[in-house]
Amino acid sequence: MHAFPADLRLALPDWVAGQLAGTPACLPTPEARMALVLAWARLNFQLDTGGPFAAGVFERDSGRLVAMGVNRVVASGCSSAHAEVMALGLAQQRLGTYDLGGPGLPAHELVVNWRPCAMCYGALLWSGARHLTIAGSGPELEALTGFDEGPVTPGWKEELGARGIEVHEGVLRAEAVALFRDFQASARVVYNARQGG
Amino acid sequence: MHAFPADLRLALPDWVAGQLAGTPACLPTPEARMALVLAWARLNFQLDTGGPFAAGVFERDSGRLVAMGVNRVVASGCSSAHAEVMALGLAQQRLGTYDLGGPGLPAHELVVNWRPCAMCYGALLWSGARHLTIAGSGPELEALTGFDEGPVTPGWKEELGARGIEVHEGVLRAEAVALFRDFQASARVVYNARQGG
Repeated sequence: MHAFPADLRLALPDWVAGQLAGTPACLPTPEARMALVLAWARLNFQLDTGGPFAAGVFERDSGRLVAMGVNRVVASGCSSAHAEVMALGLAQQRLGTYDLGGPGLPAHELVVNWRPCAMCYGALLWSGARHLTIAGSGPELEALTGFDEGPVTPGWKEELGARGIEVHEGVLRAEAVALFRDFQASARVVYNARQGG
Repeated sequence: MHAFPADLRLALPDWVAGQLAGTPACLPTPEARMALVLAWARLNFQLDTGGPFAAGVFERDSGRLVAMGVNRVVASGCSSAHAEVMALGLAQQRLGTYDLGGPGLPAHELVVNWRPCAMCYGALLWSGARHLTIAGSGPELEALTGFDEGPVTPGWKEELGARGIEVHEGVLRAEAVALFRDFQASARVVYNARQGG
């Protein structure tokens, strides 16, 4: 018999409890939701608990906060522990379903500080979320931070639309880019630096 | 303060312990590794613990089994709990690193019973694995099982190659297709049925 692992555990950092104490239960506007995501993304790298990425799952219409995630790759020893995977998984476990778009549920929205990477794009597809809100989708992320985002299919927006997922882009874009600049200036670790072509 | 979730837990089914008791520590050939993956994929749907997918992480040269995963979407209430995410995450947590290709480690191989979906393709990119072995990559999976695999970038093999990941395709292909046919015949749940175009 091997020392064989059977339980995968991924945890948010300890500071989230203190942050949540001051966070309203509902955030009615896209800007308020993105501001929360940006604040967590900034805290995550400044407190050395992960990369400069955060994500939130909200009820789209009421703005009720269901779950937040931050990048936990290094801390968790798990390359899949991106902010979106954390937020979507925690939201699903809170609601007791693998499908955020399941019967009887309100529409859910994923809010992230940039277009999801190749993996998280797929995670969004399978999550049942009906809405994606991002600050931007351009090359700024890779150019400023050095992270590799992987190949995203050219028709990424249309593929989301075909699965009933609307995209809202451009919320607090300048603030999101400023955050990447600050990460760059901090000279912190980039754990999946862009390789090859 | 909300009832706010901070720990994501994803577990393999109880039957894995019994299966491992009879599994050699090393599986030297691609066929032996794929046969194990196919056996677990079959058990997973026949025992109603998940979809017809399994994955293993092996040391590429020695064939030492590092971790196995099976699809746990429904059981875990988490749409990201695909076999590849489970296997890669468990292997990384066993080795204590988010990078299976890190310094001092032997090359690692991910063995899966079909080409990874859009999400797991990205998960592979970030894992540090240096080799992907699959039974096949064609439309048989979606056609026979009804699962949506999502849009994979057209140059998927080249993008893997550019990141130092070799692909070995066609190992026990007929057996893998037969497994999908048996899943189809079992009329079990398809939790992310193909939608739209």
